Amino acid sequence: VRSESPAFAAADWGTTRLRVWLLSRTGDVLAERRSDEGLLAAQPDRFAAILEHHLAAMGAPADLPVIVCGMAGARQGWVEAPYVGVSAALGDIFAASVRVPDLAREVRIVPGLAQRDAAAPDVMRGEETQLAGAGLAEGSHLVCMPGTHSKWVRVEDGVVTAFQTVMTGELFSVLSAHSILRHSTGGEAAGVDPGAPAFRSAVLAALAEPAALETRLFRIRAATLLQGTGEADARAGLSGLLLGAEIAACLQRFGHPDRPIVLVASGALRDLYAAALGLAGLSLSSVDADVAVRRGLECAARHAGLIPSGA
Amino acid sequence: VRSESPAFAAADWGTTRLRVWLLSRTGDVLAERRSDEGLLAAQPDRFAAILEHHLAAMGAPADLPVIVCGMAGARQGWVEAPYVGVSAALGDIFAASVRVPDLAREVRIVPGLAQRDAAAPDVMRGEETQLAGAGLAEGSHLVCMPGTHSKWVRVEDGVVTAFQTVMTGELFSVLSAHSILRHSTGGEAAGVDPGAPAFRSAVLAALAEPAALETRLFRIRAATLLQGTGEADARAGLSGLLLGAEIAACLQRFGHPDRPIVLVASGALRDLYAAALGLAGLSLSSVDADVAVRRGLECAARHAGLIPSGA
Repeated sequence: VRSESPAFAAADWGTTRLRVWLLSRTGDVLAERRSDEGLLAAQPDRFAAILEHHLAAMGAPADLPVIVCGMAGARQGWVEAPYVGVSAALGDIFAASVRVPDLAREVRIVPGLAQRDAAAPDVMRGEETQLAGAGLAEGSHLVCMPGTHSKWVRVEDGVVTAFQTVMTGELFSVLSAHSILRHSTGGEAAGVDPGAPAFRSAVLAALAEPAALETRLFRIRAATLLQGTGEADARAGLSGLLLGAEIAACLQRFGHPDRPIVLVASGALRDLYAAALGLAGLSLSSVDADVAVRRGLECAARHAGLIPSGA
Repeated sequence: VRSESPAFAAADWGTTRLRVWLLSRTGDVLAERRSDEGLLAAQPDRFAAILEHHLAAMGAPADLPVIVCGMAGARQGWVEAPYVGVSAALGDIFAASVRVPDLAREVRIVPGLAQRDAAAPDVMRGEETQLAGAGLAEGSHLVCMPGTHSKWVRVEDGVVTAFQTVMTGELFSVLSAHSILRHSTGGEAAGVDPGAPAFRSAVLAALAEPAALETRLFRIRAATLLQGTGEADARAGLSGLLLGAEIAACLQRFGHPDRPIVLVASGALRDLYAAALGLAGLSLSSVDADVAVRRGLECAARHAGLIPSGA
């Protein structure tokens, strides 16, 4: 049990999840709360009450400042933190954080990033903070951040120069829940084994022939009907096809990296992407996503002036 | 008003729709009924009652034979008509039709086709009947049959040698209804204008870079946020991406045809595919899907012995 008093609080407020931490001056976790009160559940106008509820439950002082990243800063969120355009240095993004008005407590929301490229428009909110906490050394990095909407990001000497969102997780989810494939995959809830031969062969097939994604999907259903393929293999096949196509498309976009890809992920998703990236012949440097977002929020708190920058 | 008495009845019984016709000995339509009592609504054990209801409403005699194609012959349908494997001559498929047992009336269900290829398993039910009614001349044809699950079929001298299902229509539907893209497309109900520049440019982009499908989808959402793209353009963009990727993948699979592609479609879907296939530089021979299924059912009725083969 720690008796150290917190220097600031931090919140990762996504579309479906909220996590709040009390952190020491050096970024150690003193307390943590997790809830399903994401953007969708917090609508409308309940953001302040939800945040105060979790802070009170952890015994946070009334004047403890809070740094927030994620969808809370979207137009349909709490207070809009307008996108910063790329190229953007990670430190400059945090300096553009927006203070929530009319609160006794200082709460600042980190902006997202926008790629205002007519041919490849793109946005992110939350991943910019994970990037800052990923401990990237100088030089050029290709970062893979898997999720509902995976982000692939080019970072050069601390500057985000380009990125690409891929709806891999959401494709898996909507196809498993709402398409004819649900009769083969048994729904989306059960997991995928990254060691399953069905996953590996689907990743390799998609990497070898990435343009065939649309034609391979129905084969999952046909294999159930004609070959008696089971639900676990069908899920593994769908997941492998989507991940393989994601990796192929992003390597096409960003080029094959000459140093390890930085994989920012946790748990089962990390294991799946590590396996798929390995099948693509890529070497990895793995960063835990939960650690990265906390470190990034600490970095954001310093840049926003919520805690001293020297600590 | 025709007073001719019908020679047989025909039904196209799909997953969501049922159409029943009374037809003359030469295939002229004497009466027609359409309903939403597809496979999903007819479950369980209501097939006979539904069919008799529609036949009675059209005044069909009690001994009029009926030929049926589509999902009614699936395992989860009325009576299973086991798949015929490809390669298969269209006439042989119909000779394998299955009689529904324990009915006073003779009702026969046309089997579907199965491609029992370990690398490309595939199935169809209903399209084999449209193919028979498409009036294909001798020689080799590539046939495109758009729909919820589009079918691309190689037919050589009346023999189906290979086919490929593409879930294009279902992808459009689930992404428009259930993914984050629904906030951009305004749902799936409204149509797509095949002449819209957003449709044309999306088709061309997908044809030029078919491996990038997964990375292009989220740009539809980003374009709404950053560029103010409207719902009609977002729908056109999504439709164009999916159709362009379908065409590119199927040309990769079957090769660029040296004679016109046979497009079997009706209405708005025909217009969309005709535009997209034209952008791919393909020439077309267009067959109305509604006419094709009736002609195919007439052909099936002859092969199944329900009407004389000489007429």
